[in-house]
Amino acid sequence: MEKVIDILDSTLRDGAQGEGISFSVEDKLAIVQALDVLGIPFVEAGNPGSNPKDLEFFQRASQIPLKHTKLVAFGSTCRKQTAPEEDKNLSAILQADTDAVAIFGKCWDLHVTDILCTTLEENLRMIEDSCRFLTKKGKQVFFDAEHFFDGYAANADYAMSALEAAVHGGAACLVLCDTNGGTFPDKIGKVTQEVGKRFPGVQVGIHTHNDRGMAVANSIAAVQAGATHVQGTYLGYGERCGNANLSTIIPNLQAALGYCCIPRENIHLLTTTARHLAEISNIVLPKGSPYVGASAFAHKAGMHADGVLKVSHSFEHIDPQAVGNERRFLMSEMSGRTAVLKKIRAIRPELTRESPETLKILQSLKEMEQLGYQFEGADSSFELLIRKHTGAYHPFFTLIHYRILTGRPSEEGCSASATVKLKVDDRVQLMAAEGNGPINALDKALRAALEVFYPSLSRVRLTDYKVRVMDSKSATGAVVRVLLSSSDGRREWTTVGVSSDVVEASWIALVDSIEYKLIKDAEDIFKGVGG
Amino acid sequence: MEKVIDILDSTLRDGAQGEGISFSVEDKLAIVQALDVLGIPFVEAGNPGSNPKDLEFFQRASQIPLKHTKLVAFGSTCRKQTAPEEDKNLSAILQADTDAVAIFGKCWDLHVTDILCTTLEENLRMIEDSCRFLTKKGKQVFFDAEHFFDGYAANADYAMSALEAAVHGGAACLVLCDTNGGTFPDKIGKVTQEVGKRFPGVQVGIHTHNDRGMAVANSIAAVQAGATHVQGTYLGYGERCGNANLSTIIPNLQAALGYCCIPRENIHLLTTTARHLAEISNIVLPKGSPYVGASAFAHKAGMHADGVLKVSHSFEHIDPQAVGNERRFLMSEMSGRTAVLKKIRAIRPELTRESPETLKILQSLKEMEQLGYQFEGADSSFELLIRKHTGAYHPFFTLIHYRILTGRPSEEGCSASATVKLKVDDRVQLMAAEGNGPINALDKALRAALEVFYPSLSRVRLTDYKVRVMDSKSATGAVVRVLLSSSDGRREWTTVGVSSDVVEASWIALVDSIEYKLIKDAEDIFKGVGG
Repeated sequence: MEKVIDILDSTLRDGAQGEGISFSVEDKLAIVQALDVLGIPFVEAGNPGSNPKDLEFFQRASQIPLKHTKLVAFGSTCRKQTAPEEDKNLSAILQADTDAVAIFGKCWDLHVTDILCTTLEENLRMIEDSCRFLTKKGKQVFFDAEHFFDGYAANADYAMSALEAAVHGGAACLVLCDTNGGTFPDKIGKVTQEVGKRFPGVQVGIHTHNDRGMAVANSIAAVQAGATHVQGTYLGYGERCGNANLSTIIPNLQAALGYCCIPRENIHLLTTTARHLAEISNIVLPKGSPYVGASAFAHKAGMHADGVLKVSHSFEHIDPQAVGNERRFLMSEMSGRTAVLKKIRAIRPELTRESPETLKILQSLKEMEQLGYQFEGADSSFELLIRKHTGAYHPFFTLIHYRILTGRPSEEGCSASATVKLKVDDRVQLMAAEGNGPINALDKALRAALEVFYPSLSRVRLTDYKVRVMDSKSATGAVVRVLLSSSDGRREWTTVGVSSDVVEASWIALVDSIEYKLIKDAEDIFKGVGG
Repeated sequence: MEKVIDILDSTLRDGAQGEGISFSVEDKLAIVQALDVLGIPFVEAGNPGSNPKDLEFFQRASQIPLKHTKLVAFGSTCRKQTAPEEDKNLSAILQADTDAVAIFGKCWDLHVTDILCTTLEENLRMIEDSCRFLTKKGKQVFFDAEHFFDGYAANADYAMSALEAAVHGGAACLVLCDTNGGTFPDKIGKVTQEVGKRFPGVQVGIHTHNDRGMAVANSIAAVQAGATHVQGTYLGYGERCGNANLSTIIPNLQAALGYCCIPRENIHLLTTTARHLAEISNIVLPKGSPYVGASAFAHKAGMHADGVLKVSHSFEHIDPQAVGNERRFLMSEMSGRTAVLKKIRAIRPELTRESPETLKILQSLKEMEQLGYQFEGADSSFELLIRKHTGAYHPFFTLIHYRILTGRPSEEGCSASATVKLKVDDRVQLMAAEGNGPINALDKALRAALEVFYPSLSRVRLTDYKVRVMDSKSATGAVVRVLLSSSDGRREWTTVGVSSDVVEASWIALVDSIEYKLIKDAEDIFKGVGG
């Protein structure tokens, strides 16, 4: 039988300590729901003692029906010289009204004497009393043994007595924390095993940080040494270098090592959950993220691309679809023509490596890359490029001109106005619009002009807009690359524009986005899919 | 005595397989020089057999004087049914004219029969003959045992015979590759040890990929099992999830585990080298990168910030300065007032936690964060905010208005024109400028108007410009945050602007950038430092 590992996600608590992370209550609720759908058993959702807003969150969260997830309130043990009954932190934890709670206590003698400024005995009393107090209130108590590995290295006996105090107090799980992230897997494994021997029958957990790039490896080492509870954050968010990344740990344990973390039928949700959480967090998911990143199964070397097409596991350790991701072949000088050809053939199956169209596309690709284009993240613009060179394209409109006026001081909410004049077949359309800034005004005027001819454009919305300065030495006159992501509710696509004028670069990406939508609509009608 | 580990950096070869990576010859030369200054002994700089441009690079690189670094040319063994003397790949490697070469050969039987489509014997012949051919030409040969760990798991005897063939051919080092990145540290350690026992006296190396988030841990495990040659890429660039990150591995081995990788006096260059390479590669260095990232020693939790101020190693596994990085305290609701107070006191040392100015700044911080401001990456704008609330600020100019006109079709290179009218003391200055797009035109007009009064502004250049869409649902009308990095050659600073109009957000950041420069100039004059 598979060994079950209890996963605790702390994105909302320890993850919120990461630089650049700031969750609204709505963000938090959306994250809890996404983790519940994935099947994460425990979500540590806040520290009501130190952040009063977290109490409001727990109240609102208690009204959402959750299928797999139990919420966990987090806090410290009672303070020194304070009885648990009179401690504000512990009473805030109780107010959160969760079945499970996590409390952290000091296990490193240095921290007790020099940071907490109390005696070693008083610290043990605080741990034991706090665990007992919460257990008697009916809570499942996870004891987070802060700095356990550093503490064990400095004074193993004292670190063990801290655990003992928690066990006497009734803690359900001893979570060994590598708080500073300085420990290596071999040590983690040995010490975890020692703890297991010393407290047979008590669940052991692991909580690691990535300061040495070891958080995931340390979590795996602890599980291999007997830990059955793993704490981390789904995308590795956390203070300094982050917490253990659960989107790597879960498939490592479940798909590679035969443990069970989430319902088997949910493994394919790993990638969409990652992208969804990154979006809520307003942080770009690193392309190279194991299993879930956009590049995780992206092959660029010509030889690798050829190999993986022959025997997929020759260059892949897992089937990308199993985790909801996909294999990609990147375009570049090095990838030779295999990857480009694959994309060309999706549109014109009869073309070969040697067709004049293929050669023209490769040449054009090279020239555009020199201008600053990069199609790796903008498949839709690349598809348009292929269409333009293979006769599978006709323009949906012709621009006569656009003009934009902007300034400051300005009217509230419409600092810019734009006019767009364009032609569809023989009909000329002039449209004006005001907007927040030149790009918004231009976008509105262009859409208004085109919706006259193509009503389905009203469903398109911009989901992301990125600007990358290419040659920073040229200051505000530098060439910029704009990446524009669009959605019509059913499809998402990304287009690219390059210019030394941010408005013009946006215009190019905007036109590609609209044309791509209209081409796909036409294909849908052809295939009989509802637009 | 410290055990020496030979580091081989493959940023220019395996790193170039990463998505979004594309090096010019100048980029490559700059990277080689940076790695030489750091003291990296081997830099694998290209694959001349598969990329003719790499030959040009080796020719140019041979003219740069290098102090620590030996260049390494990379390629495959000879082809099947081909003698080394007649093989194009091997002759391209020789043309690169390096003292050391790396060649890869197949060690996984599946790859020999199904990808290479030859016999197991012929593959061994190719390995042995190629190593011998290169050794006889006086080269130091690193044999990259491709897919060694997968091959060992499938057919250990065959994998070992591939190594044996390389040893018979005279290979100086057997580099065990986890090409698909699917192996865990325990396996890596065991197999590396086996290889060491089987080939006593032959150097063993390790080359890992990060598909399971294990590349760094696997490299460390191999070293602990006897490997003394470690391959990776300095920032972890590489195909799919990347290669082993040397900027993590080197300090792990050298600062934490007592090995020697680079000259001891160069350890403090780790961070600047990382930032320099990221800049050349045009890829943002992830803030959470162990040791070298901007957040690697950034404390946000109030308790951690307090603790680290009491006893620094209580929450840090290494002194940030040792690796050339620095400790930072982030501002946020959670950090309480400690971090903010520290910044306030840098400007007004007499203020306390309870001063009305402190409370006003905290209130203003909260309001601005709700608008979309984020000061974590924009210390200079935060300093200006503090100054504005503490009387340590007077405006350097007053805007009367700016107006911008832009459109398409347009003149080449000046798609926009801007006028700026402003007042310094009682003198009104009107200035107009053309530019590539509205922001460039505005930037030029503003600088031209202000340089009349403040000539030192002519030295300021923009080094980075980022735009982040805050609420993507509002499409091109969304609130955007602009981060602007500036430099005057001596100092670098970053400012922030938020608005639903990208031009206005840029304007705010631009004004902050200019005011910050003028304030620092005034301070320098006060301190007697040359401007």
